[in-house]
Amino acid sequence: MDKPSLPSGTRDFGPDVMMRRKYLIGCIENTFKRYGFLPIETPALENLRTLQGKYGDEGDQLLFKVLNNGDFLAKADEKTLLNRDSKGLSPLIADRGLRYDLTVPLARFVVMNRDKISFPFRRYQMQPVWRADRPQKGRYREFWQCDADVLGSNGISNEADLISIYDDVFSELDLKVTIRLNHRRLLDAFGNWLQGTQNLGRFMQLIDKADKIGFDGVSQELKANEIPNGIEAWTFLHSTSQMNSPAAILEALQKQESIQNEHLQEGIAALTALFSILDKLKLNNKLQLDLTLARGLSYYTGCVLEVVPSDDRIPADFKIGSIGGGGRYDNLTEIFGLKDVSGVGISFGLDRIYDIIESAQLFPTNALESTTILICAMDETTIPHAFSLAQSLRKAGIATEVYPTAAKLKKQLDYANAKGMHWAAIIGDQEMQSGMVTLKNLQSGDQQTIGQQAITEYIKP
Amino acid sequence: MDKPSLPSGTRDFGPDVMMRRKYLIGCIENTFKRYGFLPIETPALENLRTLQGKYGDEGDQLLFKVLNNGDFLAKADEKTLLNRDSKGLSPLIADRGLRYDLTVPLARFVVMNRDKISFPFRRYQMQPVWRADRPQKGRYREFWQCDADVLGSNGISNEADLISIYDDVFSELDLKVTIRLNHRRLLDAFGNWLQGTQNLGRFMQLIDKADKIGFDGVSQELKANEIPNGIEAWTFLHSTSQMNSPAAILEALQKQESIQNEHLQEGIAALTALFSILDKLKLNNKLQLDLTLARGLSYYTGCVLEVVPSDDRIPADFKIGSIGGGGRYDNLTEIFGLKDVSGVGISFGLDRIYDIIESAQLFPTNALESTTILICAMDETTIPHAFSLAQSLRKAGIATEVYPTAAKLKKQLDYANAKGMHWAAIIGDQEMQSGMVTLKNLQSGDQQTIGQQAITEYIKP
Repeated sequence: MDKPSLPSGTRDFGPDVMMRRKYLIGCIENTFKRYGFLPIETPALENLRTLQGKYGDEGDQLLFKVLNNGDFLAKADEKTLLNRDSKGLSPLIADRGLRYDLTVPLARFVVMNRDKISFPFRRYQMQPVWRADRPQKGRYREFWQCDADVLGSNGISNEADLISIYDDVFSELDLKVTIRLNHRRLLDAFGNWLQGTQNLGRFMQLIDKADKIGFDGVSQELKANEIPNGIEAWTFLHSTSQMNSPAAILEALQKQESIQNEHLQEGIAALTALFSILDKLKLNNKLQLDLTLARGLSYYTGCVLEVVPSDDRIPADFKIGSIGGGGRYDNLTEIFGLKDVSGVGISFGLDRIYDIIESAQLFPTNALESTTILICAMDETTIPHAFSLAQSLRKAGIATEVYPTAAKLKKQLDYANAKGMHWAAIIGDQEMQSGMVTLKNLQSGDQQTIGQQAITEYIKP
Repeated sequence: MDKPSLPSGTRDFGPDVMMRRKYLIGCIENTFKRYGFLPIETPALENLRTLQGKYGDEGDQLLFKVLNNGDFLAKADEKTLLNRDSKGLSPLIADRGLRYDLTVPLARFVVMNRDKISFPFRRYQMQPVWRADRPQKGRYREFWQCDADVLGSNGISNEADLISIYDDVFSELDLKVTIRLNHRRLLDAFGNWLQGTQNLGRFMQLIDKADKIGFDGVSQELKANEIPNGIEAWTFLHSTSQMNSPAAILEALQKQESIQNEHLQEGIAALTALFSILDKLKLNNKLQLDLTLARGLSYYTGCVLEVVPSDDRIPADFKIGSIGGGGRYDNLTEIFGLKDVSGVGISFGLDRIYDIIESAQLFPTNALESTTILICAMDETTIPHAFSLAQSLRKAGIATEVYPTAAKLKKQLDYANAKGMHWAAIIGDQEMQSGMVTLKNLQSGDQQTIGQQAITEYIKP
């Protein structure tokens, strides 16, 4: 018999990992709810025509396609078959695929339910997505996204809420992060300076290498690529990264003559309004206005957000990129025929956040507690009595197990210890008669005799 | 542009439905945890060789298969292609499929992690599964299962726990159910009477029709099918269904000479031990020892369980079958090469439970509350102040929204009402100066002026 295995890029989550994941998911979800976001879920299976063409050519390659049921070759074209034309055959034999992200399904959901939704529509969604990417460390073929979006509202205060959500979640997780912020309209203003938006994309790609090749390296590349005014624009952008307040950066933008246009004023006005709200909120984490942040240039139309960890408890050799991102997109539902619904959203990269919190050892130990107490019956006839005691503990909300047989005490206690339980209550014939139990603290080893009614109060968390 | 649509048999869940589903899931999950069950999750994608051959021929037909990525036809056999042999081509172009249930993945998980698991292994799992069934009312292609299983323990007290879980969950949901129970060994004893287990399956199928065709109808069918001693066995079984205590039924079994053998004694001993525990627990719902219950004859080896709704608040025309089931299976992990791991488990049919609770109008209204309070700013300059107030309410755990623009008050209140909020706090220029807000109860229409610090205490749930 074959040894059973998992498909490459997929994972099982055992109890220890699941309890940690549930702690993260609970923290994110409770924050979403506190901000008035409501849950939706969409199916894993989507029609391929809903998904295809929405994620670029590369995205289309990474879609998982589901084979039609039954005699799927009946309608296949003979020539396509003979040519072994996989690409040509695929649309003839697969109508459905697996969800690739949560954003396109959101757009489809809103278009299909537009009459039932009251806008602004604040929804969150936490579900797995699938991508046929090459698996590598930290990259999986089945992984979770946790998204919150507001649809149908232009107000910049939505961005304030989303930034505040990031701040709340990472504060609660006790992980220091930097929230990077930019505005697409500011980048557009630079596009003018660079003599055309066609140069902007290339420019942003080159300056994105600054972390690796430094200021001079980027300057050389800009020169080599002959980006008009590239070095001037880069010199200015780099100077703003040394400024320590958003106000100073906005002021520098106002003074930079080469980028004055209505795009710039629109971006500055939006950010000024945003900071007037955020100033009231006293965020725990650093919010950095970073004019070099591009992130989805073809997609976002207003604010752009990215979260990077900046906690010095993360081991130095633990390299990881962003753990969250988002922004405003004005035309999301247009792909399904519904115009003029502006949207803004953020996403949490659950799997990466997990890896970082784990590496910095920030999971609280109480997130991992499973059963609180094991009731050990010393002979078969005591088992019904043990269940009666378990029932009263469970009614008080205490997670309780009865060892299912009257096995040797050592075996029962080994099981309790392996499962990380705090307590064991031992009931033999004598205890049953007297209404007492031997209560053992499995952490300290102490034990005492205590009345069965008194246990609940004694061990209640 | 195509109107977007969903694949047949799949569903979106909007906020109203999601909040109800989360209420059900939370209730089931909290109960699992109170009994010491720990969560696991397995991937949606499994290797097809893990799934195939595990659910019978019909099950194999219903598996969703995922097309291999890239040039999937490269290795396909030319003859298979030319013959348009879908069945032959399928294994050449699809290595993976979608999870069909949670039981086979559990077996695979246990075999792959046997060295890390401390037995008895009490796990729960709540995830969607996929079946390419013909969609119809109450039957979907993507639906949820909620399972709890104990692996590696023979003790009948595990069955007591699982029955108690059923009782707890449906008590908490305020839905009256009947828990039907049988034991495979008792059925085996009947197999002898029917002159061979090969007749038992046919016999059970025929008596399963009793609901529709009555006692006489079944008798006629048994005669027509020439089941040896079928009518005698059926007459006896039917008589036990009139008895109102398990003890009376067990006594009748002891007295029925035609079925005396070691199987019968084994079954009776197990059930006697089980009832000695359950008698201590005083279940809220009816537990019915039902000797006609077959449910997975080829699969279960000990106790067999089924839950049917019996609540008179369910509309009479609302027909639905079982909403849960389970039992003991001795050889689950053997399919993956690990012998002698006995298991026992139960499953909750989430989608059917949802439909029933909805039909009987048993969803508590507080399960549906979304945001508690909307803060309405009357002009743009007040918005930062509104956010500051929102922050303090959220810190107190109150779900709060700020309307994202200074729209007309009516528009803001319409939004709050559409979302079912309880309260609106209105802040204009005057209120901002004075530190007061106008607090409006959206249910009663009452409003009052109140200090901003005092709101939290006033509206706290």
